Amino acid sequence: MRKNTIKEIWNRGESVINGWCSIPSSFSTEIMAHQGFDSITIDMQHGLVDYQVAVTMLQAISSTSVIPLTRVPWNDPAILMKILDAGSYGVICPMINNSEDAESLVRACKYPPQGYRSFGPIRTKYSSGGAIHGGGDYHNYANEETLVIPQIETREAIRNLDEILTTPGIGAIYIGPSDLAMALGKEPRKGQSDPEFIEARQEILKKAKHYGIPAGIHTNSVNVAVEMIKEGFQLVSLQSDDRFLMSRAKQEVEGVRNTLIQK
Amino acid sequence: MRKNTIKEIWNRGESVINGWCSIPSSFSTEIMAHQGFDSITIDMQHGLVDYQVAVTMLQAISSTSVIPLTRVPWNDPAILMKILDAGSYGVICPMINNSEDAESLVRACKYPPQGYRSFGPIRTKYSSGGAIHGGGDYHNYANEETLVIPQIETREAIRNLDEILTTPGIGAIYIGPSDLAMALGKEPRKGQSDPEFIEARQEILKKAKHYGIPAGIHTNSVNVAVEMIKEGFQLVSLQSDDRFLMSRAKQEVEGVRNTLIQK
Amino acid sequence: MRKNTIKEIWNRGESVINGWCSIPSSFSTEIMAHQGFDSITIDMQHGLVDYQVAVTMLQAISSTSVIPLTRVPWNDPAILMKILDAGSYGVICPMINNSEDAESLVRACKYPPQGYRSFGPIRTKYSSGGAIHGGGDYHNYANEETLVIPQIETREAIRNLDEILTTPGIGAIYIGPSDLAMALGKEPRKGQSDPEFIEARQEILKKAKHYGIPAGIHTNSVNVAVEMIKEGFQLVSLQSDDRFLMSRAKQEVEGVRNTLIQK
Amino acid sequence: MRKNTIKEIWNRGESVINGWCSIPSSFSTEIMAHQGFDSITIDMQHGLVDYQVAVTMLQAISSTSVIPLTRVPWNDPAILMKILDAGSYGVICPMINNSEDAESLVRACKYPPQGYRSFGPIRTKYSSGGAIHGGGDYHNYANEETLVIPQIETREAIRNLDEILTTPGIGAIYIGPSDLAMALGKEPRKGQSDPEFIEARQEILKKAKHYGIPAGIHTNSVNVAVEMIKEGFQLVSLQSDDRFLMSRAKQEVEGVRNTLIQK
Amino acid sequence: MRKNTIKEIWNRGESVINGWCSIPSSFSTEIMAHQGFDSITIDMQHGLVDYQVAVTMLQAISSTSVIPLTRVPWNDPAILMKILDAGSYGVICPMINNSEDAESLVRACKYPPQGYRSFGPIRTKYSSGGAIHGGGDYHNYANEETLVIPQIETREAIRNLDEILTTPGIGAIYIGPSDLAMALGKEPRKGQSDPEFIEARQEILKKAKHYGIPAGIHTNSVNVAVEMIKEGFQLVSLQSDDRFLMSRAKQEVEGVRNTLIQK
Amino acid sequence: MRKNTIKEIWNRGESVINGWCSIPSSFSTEIMAHQGFDSITIDMQHGLVDYQVAVTMLQAISSTSVIPLTRVPWNDPAILMKILDAGSYGVICPMINNSEDAESLVRACKYPPQGYRSFGPIRTKYSSGGAIHGGGDYHNYANEETLVIPQIETREAIRNLDEILTTPGIGAIYIGPSDLAMALGKEPRKGQSDPEFIEARQEILKKAKHYGIPAGIHTNSVNVAVEMIKEGFQLVSLQSDDRFLMSRAKQEVEGVRNTLIQK
Repeated sequence: MRKNTIKEIWNRGESVINGWCSIPSSFSTEIMAHQGFDSITIDMQHGLVDYQVAVTMLQAISSTSVIPLTRVPWNDPAILMKILDAGSYGVICPMINNSEDAESLVRACKYPPQGYRSFGPIRTKYSSGGAIHGGGDYHNYANEETLVIPQIETREAIRNLDEILTTPGIGAIYIGPSDLAMALGKEPRKGQSDPEFIEARQEILKKAKHYGIPAGIHTNSVNVAVEMIKEGFQLVSLQSDDRFLMSRAKQEVEGVRNTLIQK
Repeated sequence: MRKNTIKEIWNRGESVINGWCSIPSSFSTEIMAHQGFDSITIDMQHGLVDYQVAVTMLQAISSTSVIPLTRVPWNDPAILMKILDAGSYGVICPMINNSEDAESLVRACKYPPQGYRSFGPIRTKYSSGGAIHGGGDYHNYANEETLVIPQIETREAIRNLDEILTTPGIGAIYIGPSDLAMALGKEPRKGQSDPEFIEARQEILKKAKHYGIPAGIHTNSVNVAVEMIKEGFQLVSLQSDDRFLMSRAKQEVEGVRNTLIQK
Repeated sequence: MRKNTIKEIWNRGESVINGWCSIPSSFSTEIMAHQGFDSITIDMQHGLVDYQVAVTMLQAISSTSVIPLTRVPWNDPAILMKILDAGSYGVICPMINNSEDAESLVRACKYPPQGYRSFGPIRTKYSSGGAIHGGGDYHNYANEETLVIPQIETREAIRNLDEILTTPGIGAIYIGPSDLAMALGKEPRKGQSDPEFIEARQEILKKAKHYGIPAGIHTNSVNVAVEMIKEGFQLVSLQSDDRFLMSRAKQEVEGVRNTLIQK
Repeated sequence: MRKNTIKEIWNRGESVINGWCSIPSSFSTEIMAHQGFDSITIDMQHGLVDYQVAVTMLQAISSTSVIPLTRVPWNDPAILMKILDAGSYGVICPMINNSEDAESLVRACKYPPQGYRSFGPIRTKYSSGGAIHGGGDYHNYANEETLVIPQIETREAIRNLDEILTTPGIGAIYIGPSDLAMALGKEPRKGQSDPEFIEARQEILKKAKHYGIPAGIHTNSVNVAVEMIKEGFQLVSLQSDDRFLMSRAKQEVEGVRNTLIQK
Repeated sequence: MRKNTIKEIWNRGESVINGWCSIPSSFSTEIMAHQGFDSITIDMQHGLVDYQVAVTMLQAISSTSVIPLTRVPWNDPAILMKILDAGSYGVICPMINNSEDAESLVRACKYPPQGYRSFGPIRTKYSSGGAIHGGGDYHNYANEETLVIPQIETREAIRNLDEILTTPGIGAIYIGPSDLAMALGKEPRKGQSDPEFIEARQEILKKAKHYGIPAGIHTNSVNVAVEMIKEGFQLVSLQSDDRFLMSRAKQEVEGVRNTLIQK
Repeated sequence: MRKNTIKEIWNRGESVINGWCSIPSSFSTEIMAHQGFDSITIDMQHGLVDYQVAVTMLQAISSTSVIPLTRVPWNDPAILMKILDAGSYGVICPMINNSEDAESLVRACKYPPQGYRSFGPIRTKYSSGGAIHGGGDYHNYANEETLVIPQIETREAIRNLDEILTTPGIGAIYIGPSDLAMALGKEPRKGQSDPEFIEARQEILKKAKHYGIPAGIHTNSVNVAVEMIKEGFQLVSLQSDDRFLMSRAKQEVEGVRNTLIQK
């Protein structure tokens, strides 16, 4: 049996530092998995990543002890079950707006009797540790160890937050701040410093704490990540691999060009 | 006809800032191609990149005006011809140690009568511009515009540098400093500050200038890149995409962890 | 026109021996297709297989006379239509629980007027035989030859079995015994010898026979497969390629280690 | 900001000549993109194309000024959002039968407040031009420039055509004539010359014109394409890459065989 | 045992009509394989095709009775052996200039004692027919049925033609007319109507006939193909899939635009 | 630093049980890596495996402690260096016939001063353990830990065995029995029980022992593997993944068919 170390970090009262993979490559993911993150999320929603490549990315993460999560593109049982079978130890799901959405999400991710996840942990039986005699006991602890994480990113979700947070089987919630900002009528990036956005963010966090559900959030800088952890978020995602690559490459090119010009 | 703008930069007396792609993904390459480099080299030697993926990386570069180069894994006519047909506007070739190696390299890359490159510019006929009526005039200017760049990285190559530099068809030379350091009996990274290494590097550059052949070099920081340009190198490669990703990811994770500890 | 030989086997009163492919590789599938199965099912639900690789697996099967089937991940018209266009001669669909599910499944798989399958048999027009003048007459017999096979694997499906079995267009039904066992509150593997499970299995088979609908089932050993055929199942799937590989590799390694220890 | 030149062509009163890509290859798409089409549609419904390859096909198109569109397999927000993020400048969606379908389609494709498209234009931020500082202003004009195009291909859609055409956010409509013919009880190909089909086609076009919505249609020959443009269709698709390849190859083989026989 | 039907066609005194695949896609190859060619050559030299995709292209051809050949990028035992193991029934090899080249080529392609081809017909044992008990008798007839075809395309090769043609194991020769034209100092396309080129071509054919070795040639139109067959060539390749696609697409687009302009 | 546990097994006086991967899939390789083998060899010679897929197979092995080896297709520095950089901890190289071949092989695999392997352990720096600050100390112990293993499979190699075995840097030798049998004029499979073959095998083993070089061999059954270990071979490969799959699938199908017939 493989424990989900995210839960152990939370049990210690600490926050999870989560990497984010949007480049469809098992190698860029393997690089990310060696840099010190607690968990890595493969982004199948906005990342350029589809299932077949995601499998190789999950394999790359398996060469480390980092916990693999996946953001699915939609609340669809087909991809939820497939990506859990492929070795993901949790799912982040966009656009969960009410208890019906949340229950549908949970049920697709949990084996009976909690849900209707279909049996066939084809790769997870290897990647989850044991795998003695080709399967082991994964199905006995999967419901417990697998994290189901709805995204809160609409006004409707905020209105229905109590019922979402109390849906049995929800392991955490996650805020996509750009989408939440747009839902509130703000700019996706700049809107995140708008008072209304900040109020919504804090309200979500407060309710999550009330129900004992860890809250996670996407961040775009070290400073914001640290600030969010201090605010109480228990999982922070640090930008994404494509943005790391972009910003560092740009920084280097400009560094050379600017130095040459100055001298 | 598409001009090789690397040559135009050199004609203006400026240096080329070259990106380096080792991640086998057309998307990471597309990101790199939008960050301001003059040229991008696909590394088929030490990068995790084989031909079929390299083709999609070349296609990604073609959505910009950046000049695509390729470092081939070896002085082998099969891959030299294939990668030029696929749209590479030049090749960097490791381990060219004497005039025989250099001639063999040039001949595989040039159409008759300069060489024996076989005719079939299947993708280059599109990516090189024209492509009117399915081919255009690429073969008429390919010998002129396509850069053939031997790597100088052994004691033997240094001994034979005059004959390499005077081999007709050589468009530039390139120093892989880690390999050159190891060839001189030094550590691959640290050895680059060894006096013997520095002397060798300057000797190579001096000879290249004597024969009017631009010299390029790999660098591992903005400072070194600027220093090399000032020293006279006309093409500097800035690390590589995998190292950009690695260092930025590590920096961010450590940034968060260290800030949390301090506070 | 290519006849679906599964139907011919059934018309002879015989049972179909079905292979099961979960490894995402056209080569492992080609190996499977040469070992004597009547049909081969590509498992897009629990197999590590997505559409693009499934297409190459279907091509590999096309080099033999074996009938290709596909288990889709969900009752979703997008994938049902795509996989039929790609050359699958039938689909097995999980989680069909009532007549509404069954009708929705059938309608996505049948051309008008029986359903709303969209016209565009891009690969099937080649793989189905004819393909004279780029298309042939596939659409005229596709509704007849293409097998639509719901999976019966929940208590709800058992309750609604009559209405599922009498849904026009259903060609067979299929039992996933692990899921059925879990739905009945048993262990996925061991639960298959539980009396309640056996009773459910036999009840399903009995009803299927009553309505003249062939029933298929997944099996995990030669003995069980033979037993199921004797019980009346007209299609038996024999484990899967990944389990064949796993068990044979383990058997060989242990064979060597155990023999060395004994001697 | 990159303008959608399809709209500019329409504003000039001209018709768009659209290519159609069904072969899952970035190279065949790149060939198509250089032959003079105004736009190219990647067919994810009947083409053998899934998302991951579609991304490389979109990259290939980006090396030209041709506008990339995608036909999605189904009205599913997951794929609609993913393919727009990947750089598609519009979507054609099958089986839109009423205003509910149409609204659902529009809302998945438009950022708030018009819809609920999630923010993350990962590749579009590069392919749409700007991309200064890693993103630019794509989200500010995306709702305006991105074309949402429902397919009209059932009796139900014809009945509800007014409400579909007046759904805010619809940029054009598209007729798949084979499916429309089958929906009307005709043969998919031959049925297109049936009076009832022709009447339906003209009725659709007339209504579209009434509401100022451009109408597009698939065609199978130069003659039909020209005829449709004259009839008033403002976008015509010319067969598809697989049919171009098939018909030309067959023509050449038969050309040789027939000439040899005659002589 | 699977006979090489190319040899049977030659034995009947007829010529082989050969297709040519440069698009790296198993689907475009499958289309080609259904259009009536006797054989299909996968072009790994100038086609955008590397080994891993070539395997899927060979699998696609195996769904028909068409004989698969491969043009390798270079006279290199690694790729020669790999592509034969993958199911190619013959190889065309560029740049064979003398008997040493020819012997080296033959020896890599023939099992001992004729050569040193290594044993491991991993896919050919399936694709060559039999495959009973995992291998069958392929190795017993492979030396006989597998065609080894050097390309004659340089002045040196013409000078050494007698020794090449009399190298034991050579099954045919092949002329790449563009390369031969360039080797003679002409333009690659237009040079093919130059008297010196024509004389060279006829001289090669004459010598081949003298030694009883069939000669093949690449052609760019039906007319030239027919002419070459009449001249005595026993294998003609008709352009290539990428050129079929390009020319047909261009023809259609221009057809529509020109018709619209005229009217 | 990651130790090569193959060497540790040998130091304990035990034999290595080696798996063999010919199916080009990271998943089949992951399955193999979990079944108890000490090492796994990716077969790039006769397996259907090229470099880009091999990288993902090496990543799959890295999720276990199994040592990854690669059989390269030929003694070519390009692929030798690339596959070591990708994480292979040793190479098996076919057709090493004399000391010149052996030296060439060793020199491509060892960093200076032992050889001329170029510096750039792009993936090995992660997969070899450490990878602190993006590289660690891999290059300091790579020459020691990386196994260079020539194949002995020709009469020439047997004649020159002393000089091959005494080439500095050779870590072991490997017998491909089918090729050796063919080289001796026997059938590839049956010939392995021929007295002349057995004598050659024992002679090779004896000489290897004389020089203290471990010898490995391919085997086709548990019995032969055990026998070879007893004979003194220190590494035995057990068939291959494709043969495991083939034989088990055939066994199961025949098991069902035969049981049905008997009853």
